[in-house]
Amino acid sequence: MNQHKISKAIQIGNVTIGGGAPVVVQSMTSTDTRDVVSTIKQIKELEEVDCELVRVAVPDMEATAAIREIKRGITIPLVVDIHFDYRLALAALEAGCDGLRLNPGNISEPDKVSAVVHAAKERDVPIRIGLNAGSLPKTADPKLSVAEQMVEAALEQIRLLESLNFDLIKVSLKAFDVPTTIEAYRSIANKIPYPLHIGITEAGLPRTGVIRSAVGIGTLLYMGIGDTIRVSLTTHPREEVIAGYEILKSLDLRQHGPVLVSCPSCGRTEVDIISLAEEVGRRLEKIKKPIKVAVMGCVVNGPGEAKDADIGIACGKGRGVLFRKGEQIGTVEEKDFVKALMAEVERL
Amino acid sequence: MNQHKISKAIQIGNVTIGGGAPVVVQSMTSTDTRDVVSTIKQIKELEEVDCELVRVAVPDMEATAAIREIKRGITIPLVVDIHFDYRLALAALEAGCDGLRLNPGNISEPDKVSAVVHAAKERDVPIRIGLNAGSLPKTADPKLSVAEQMVEAALEQIRLLESLNFDLIKVSLKAFDVPTTIEAYRSIANKIPYPLHIGITEAGLPRTGVIRSAVGIGTLLYMGIGDTIRVSLTTHPREEVIAGYEILKSLDLRQHGPVLVSCPSCGRTEVDIISLAEEVGRRLEKIKKPIKVAVMGCVVNGPGEAKDADIGIACGKGRGVLFRKGEQIGTVEEKDFVKALMAEVERL
Repeated sequence: MNQHKISKAIQIGNVTIGGGAPVVVQSMTSTDTRDVVSTIKQIKELEEVDCELVRVAVPDMEATAAIREIKRGITIPLVVDIHFDYRLALAALEAGCDGLRLNPGNISEPDKVSAVVHAAKERDVPIRIGLNAGSLPKTADPKLSVAEQMVEAALEQIRLLESLNFDLIKVSLKAFDVPTTIEAYRSIANKIPYPLHIGITEAGLPRTGVIRSAVGIGTLLYMGIGDTIRVSLTTHPREEVIAGYEILKSLDLRQHGPVLVSCPSCGRTEVDIISLAEEVGRRLEKIKKPIKVAVMGCVVNGPGEAKDADIGIACGKGRGVLFRKGEQIGTVEEKDFVKALMAEVERL
Repeated sequence: MNQHKISKAIQIGNVTIGGGAPVVVQSMTSTDTRDVVSTIKQIKELEEVDCELVRVAVPDMEATAAIREIKRGITIPLVVDIHFDYRLALAALEAGCDGLRLNPGNISEPDKVSAVVHAAKERDVPIRIGLNAGSLPKTADPKLSVAEQMVEAALEQIRLLESLNFDLIKVSLKAFDVPTTIEAYRSIANKIPYPLHIGITEAGLPRTGVIRSAVGIGTLLYMGIGDTIRVSLTTHPREEVIAGYEILKSLDLRQHGPVLVSCPSCGRTEVDIISLAEEVGRRLEKIKKPIKVAVMGCVVNGPGEAKDADIGIACGKGRGVLFRKGEQIGTVEEKDFVKALMAEVERL
């Protein structure tokens, strides 16, 4: 795994992004931002699964008016998403947002950007330059690849912000196409010192969207690229946060609750490993501690994997061998598998 | 994306692995192999979702006896998974299996391996050398990293097979830990010409296991490594095949049925994009053709993404703009969204 690229740190509220800080998991509300009660309720649901930063769309002035109230009801920093109208950005800053996301594809006049940058600078509020393949600026050069068009458009906007003496910058370059997205981020990571917000945009329904996101975000993180992630799914945003942590856990970049190692079961398995793993999985959902639990169905990899876990069981016919931190601590009857495993989990 | 490493091609039944062939999606049964009826039934279920190669565990002589019958009931090639007892491999070859998977961690005596290799060679049956981090040979050097231990153990076995003038070799080096797995495959990919079977072992329940698998398998494929994949999930193996294709589709390595681009919805969305995408997703499940459908909630990325799809809809308040192959073909009332989209899908 490549060493993680250390970018310039920025501060969004009390959350540090870049500069070697842990990769931050963020999401975005799907509620109508003007509906303060529903928006706060959804953000609280996101906080429950440890979302660290939340973004809300601000499509009109009524939505900017809601920001102050929403901020009062939540504890994580709030980023506002602005398109087309720079006055919304000014009003959102006035209302106390912790971060701004602008899309150079649709606020491109330098004097309007300049007005927003001055107001952000006064308040030390970072700006994400958020390019999407679906909304490239009209000035993009179609002879370039989509990835290069995204990089060029971002660099142009970055230069504008730098010329205004502003460096609280974060950048994203998202596409639905995974190779395009990876290519764009790899290219810009070598050109700028700013932290990168990574993700695959419009990845779709959860079943396929988590896979597409995991391939794209995971590959970039493996390469050492990315300071904050958003998994983009067409469902309740809670699932985005859960998937985000799973991506980070799979690369040992964050710990977040338990990890369940379980074998797929095969013709060698002599217990119902699928039901056992599902039951253990359900019970582990309530555990916050980052422990590794292994549920293994046979003697081939069972003892090896079970030993490597904090708590493990390697099942044979009608009974299983229990392991704690690599040591065999006893055998258990099949009917007691879940009880015995969970008792050990509780003891940790 | 790195150019795909061209490995030596091998033939498992009528399926080519390596040599620039499309990456093959495979799975493994979770039934008792001796139960021929259930095993055939599950393999037929796998064939229905386009599984291209299937593996069954062969833990005893009764299981080897089932192979001939299972072969008769299925159309995809059959690989048998053998541990500990080389005589099972001999019997499985005799029974007509199309491929063998051996684990050097547990059949290590050279004369036994040699007997199997001779029998495989006579029948042109390839052997996968399948190392798992959980079952490394006892001779592994603990001063090396786990990835290096896996590579060394595989190389030793490969040299043994080569010394017997056998080169119908495929190799896998799986661990639960994603960085370890990637490190092992990257290392061996530079050392041997043989095709690689890639996967993350014991990845767990579907919700987390698909993410872990997508990160590991996806990163390797992006790097140009991997000739066949197995997603290992604790559930019905059908889900492994579906997830496998999604990983390959996300990197444009295979086409397989429709792709749904859909936005996560946000405070800008004025229609119920989640329900709409779910309904379209359900209906697309029946479509086999590789078409790209976009369901977008607003004017920011909507028209851009909808244009890029074969069929797309960019929704606004109460109505949406329909796109076909990049061209706007009309506007649709909200109540007709699904009907209009699916009518266009059918027309393609």
